[in-house]
Amino acid sequence: MKIVIIGGVAGGMSAATRLRRLNEEAEIIVLEKGPYVSFANCGLPYYVAGEIEERSDLLVQTPEQLKARFKLDVRPNSEATKIDPVAKTVEVLSNGETYTVAYDQLLLSPGAKPFIPPIDGLAAAKNVFTLRNVPDVDQIMQFVTKEAPKKAMVIGAGFIGLEMAESLAHRGIAVTVVEKAPHVLPTLDEEMAAYITKELKRNQVEVITGVSATAIEDAGKTVVLENGQHIDTDFILLSVGVQPENSLAIDAGIQTGLRGGIMVDERYETSVKDIYAVGDAILVKQFSTQQDTLISLASPANRQGRQVADVLSGLARKNLGSLGTAIVRVFNKTIASTGLNERQLQLEGTNYQVVHVQGKNHAGYYPNATMIVLKLIFNPKTGEIYGAQAVGEEGVDKRIDSIATAIKGRLTVQDLPELEFTYAPPFGSAKDPVNMAGYAALNLMEGISESIQWHELNQYLVNGAFLLDVRNPGEVANGRFEKAMNIPLDSLRERMAEVPKNQTIIVSCQSGLRSYLAERMLKQNGYQVKNLDGAFSLYETVRPEEVM
Amino acid sequence: MKIVIIGGVAGGMSAATRLRRLNEEAEIIVLEKGPYVSFANCGLPYYVAGEIEERSDLLVQTPEQLKARFKLDVRPNSEATKIDPVAKTVEVLSNGETYTVAYDQLLLSPGAKPFIPPIDGLAAAKNVFTLRNVPDVDQIMQFVTKEAPKKAMVIGAGFIGLEMAESLAHRGIAVTVVEKAPHVLPTLDEEMAAYITKELKRNQVEVITGVSATAIEDAGKTVVLENGQHIDTDFILLSVGVQPENSLAIDAGIQTGLRGGIMVDERYETSVKDIYAVGDAILVKQFSTQQDTLISLASPANRQGRQVADVLSGLARKNLGSLGTAIVRVFNKTIASTGLNERQLQLEGTNYQVVHVQGKNHAGYYPNATMIVLKLIFNPKTGEIYGAQAVGEEGVDKRIDSIATAIKGRLTVQDLPELEFTYAPPFGSAKDPVNMAGYAALNLMEGISESIQWHELNQYLVNGAFLLDVRNPGEVANGRFEKAMNIPLDSLRERMAEVPKNQTIIVSCQSGLRSYLAERMLKQNGYQVKNLDGAFSLYETVRPEEVM
Repeated sequence: MKIVIIGGVAGGMSAATRLRRLNEEAEIIVLEKGPYVSFANCGLPYYVAGEIEERSDLLVQTPEQLKARFKLDVRPNSEATKIDPVAKTVEVLSNGETYTVAYDQLLLSPGAKPFIPPIDGLAAAKNVFTLRNVPDVDQIMQFVTKEAPKKAMVIGAGFIGLEMAESLAHRGIAVTVVEKAPHVLPTLDEEMAAYITKELKRNQVEVITGVSATAIEDAGKTVVLENGQHIDTDFILLSVGVQPENSLAIDAGIQTGLRGGIMVDERYETSVKDIYAVGDAILVKQFSTQQDTLISLASPANRQGRQVADVLSGLARKNLGSLGTAIVRVFNKTIASTGLNERQLQLEGTNYQVVHVQGKNHAGYYPNATMIVLKLIFNPKTGEIYGAQAVGEEGVDKRIDSIATAIKGRLTVQDLPELEFTYAPPFGSAKDPVNMAGYAALNLMEGISESIQWHELNQYLVNGAFLLDVRNPGEVANGRFEKAMNIPLDSLRERMAEVPKNQTIIVSCQSGLRSYLAERMLKQNGYQVKNLDGAFSLYETVRPEEVM
Repeated sequence: MKIVIIGGVAGGMSAATRLRRLNEEAEIIVLEKGPYVSFANCGLPYYVAGEIEERSDLLVQTPEQLKARFKLDVRPNSEATKIDPVAKTVEVLSNGETYTVAYDQLLLSPGAKPFIPPIDGLAAAKNVFTLRNVPDVDQIMQFVTKEAPKKAMVIGAGFIGLEMAESLAHRGIAVTVVEKAPHVLPTLDEEMAAYITKELKRNQVEVITGVSATAIEDAGKTVVLENGQHIDTDFILLSVGVQPENSLAIDAGIQTGLRGGIMVDERYETSVKDIYAVGDAILVKQFSTQQDTLISLASPANRQGRQVADVLSGLARKNLGSLGTAIVRVFNKTIASTGLNERQLQLEGTNYQVVHVQGKNHAGYYPNATMIVLKLIFNPKTGEIYGAQAVGEEGVDKRIDSIATAIKGRLTVQDLPELEFTYAPPFGSAKDPVNMAGYAALNLMEGISESIQWHELNQYLVNGAFLLDVRNPGEVANGRFEKAMNIPLDSLRERMAEVPKNQTIIVSCQSGLRSYLAERMLKQNGYQVKNLDGAFSLYETVRPEEVM
């Protein structure tokens, strides 16, 4: 058996090593276009920052090591230029020479390449970079070291864009981030991404959203935005997203689908017999909706690589789809998500409900506790969990990992309070934010609490609702709604007569806990009440211009 | 409606506040024997260590705060001395006076009290302490400050015992830990607990296991062990476990069961009408076995308190049982567990299989990665996950939380590779240790790998097996099995002829990954091979006297 693998990073290399473990005799050839295989692609921005100090740390395995340990024929600098599915051969270009290699089974793991937006003057600029592999990072490091740019522009505020914004800022470069979408991190929801915008600004990164870059002038020294703004810069990173590296597959007659993703069946076989594909280039099913989606993440790619090796070895495996769990650290904040976001659910036409809870990463009485904002998106009828997002300084990963596991286990919001997490003061709280999110969602489902979202507040007020802030005067002095009555929670029972009976009351506090208590008090005294979900702290983060 | 709650900490106070949220008008009286309610009982050892600096941080809520916010009638220093279930009254002793309070519904949340072992001379010693509440910690701190003990003995190496051992050591006190069970942390398995023994010793804590303390002499200056050993000490902490605080319940004719635990139905009602119970004093069902068990942990107690408030308010709730997820930090190591351990499964007569994997807490190429040892216990036929244990420096909580969630979601080991965790280099790896544990378990279930456990090695060798160590010479020089052939993995293909064909080959490396690769190579060349699960690093931790 002779297996040829095109692409020697996450999916391809996972497949190659698993194949060898299952089959000591198979001939396994890995063709990698670039000079390195099995490199730490997710580590590249940290190398730019200087956090990963040694370039050699990025090179996880060499062809020599892979040969010694796995008897793999790994060929870097070897570009597959053509597939002949009838003859079952691949044409390879290496060091200017072309040769042909035959296969019994072919695996495509070409990955995704940076999308290059149509920006005038791009080609003429010598200071424009993308970041996908080690040669890219070498070019960036060479430029940064030699030219010592003072200003950088990051076009595209996705995960890589923001990691690079932080990395460049760490090098003392003044960074501007431009994002075409209405907010940074377009795969997350606006109010959650707002915490990251705030953190970027706190670290002197300029953030411009809702605008695209249209032209590059002065050989890269000026970027022109859609709104006419001209911004000086010394360095430009393009990170507006990726697209499947599909040209070889298309040339071979392999079917592609949504946004050019390579179509595969649940065994990873493409439309062409004996050609399989894994990784960022393939279409997978979103776990909850079972709709086609493209996911460019290392974890699914690695899993798929291993699974396809099992398939090729005759083991029963199925691609069960992906949740798309993701995380990014931006300076001192971390934001993570799993499953579907609001925008995706709206596109699907799915009815959903949202709840935000705020809780400490560990016991509040143990030193250095920090706040996590956790958002849960769920089906208000069945309790099905559609997705979750969290932002904070510590412990964000843990909460999203638990919820991602709960979604895979088809647990509902009713089950979240039942989850028993490790608890000791340095690690969590007896009621973890994930438990609290379940309680809060259940309160909504059972009608014990009713809430409105941050983006609904103004309309409620226009329609005559009354905003009651139950925080303490000291908190109110530090920032408040333009128009709200303040009665501290602990005085509410005595001062309840001050609250008007003939209006819908919207209650808010700092984080949402006290406002819920106020809601319950008022409701049981005959008031119409709704809790402002996420409360003042969320509102002031996403609408800083609307608070005082 | 008048509800009386006996016990004002985790379960009782969760119930009281939830009751108020659901019912603004109910009369809610909380009777607490001690001077404080709602204190941070899990924080007490950290206060002894000085990590929590302010005593006031331990007092989470005061009766005054609870009155202002929740209109609760909280009565500290008020001991319920008798229940009359017919008259529906509770007799209360407070400041030397006795009075009676009537109830419509009574909730018992008395907790568990330290078990006092039968040790001669205990009563005569003035330097013997237990740790359950704030007065206990006050006494300890007063003694420690005033008497400046140089030596301390901790009798009982459970969670509190080890937290206190660390805390006392942080104060510069020379600590000896004595545990009657064969190893520290008797609720975990021996080889996992061995990592903590090693960490204790590394921090100059003396560890004596398999021996109980039988007498205290010289007014507490000498502890006599079962084996005749006499140990000098200045301070003694008794932490040999807890027992349900059940005397009030028994006097009231309430049925108790296993080890004195208060029996409740799934709605938390005891055998006596209108009397409910929650927390450490009740019997709950172990989640997997549905057998009665006692669990003294804050998280289930808090959940039960809230649930019983719902029950008392007419909402449909059921106690679904507990997994018993737990964690403890001991110096720089953390160990955690969820579900059943090997001993419990053996007692149940359940057939199970074990796998140990070792993986980094985050990407190895990102700075400061540390190793996690993760143990998974599962049904080798169905893949049902019975339990998991993990030990390491960082990220142990996260992995056990995910597996605890997986167990609650009835996921199997086949599902673990499918779990999609947050991955970026500072947070994890594309293949998380939890994924790896799933892969490893699946390899065992599918016969791709066969393993033996650390405690089986000697018998295999006695029976003629051949031990092959595939580590590099540098690693072998740092510590090795007494009797093993060494062929580095990368040379194994060339040197395979040196491996005898007529013996069972046991392969080992440092962490278990390379030995698995060696196993696959050898198997496909016709050898009978078994992988030493956990490999040399586990073996040298649990059997340090048997390695060189």
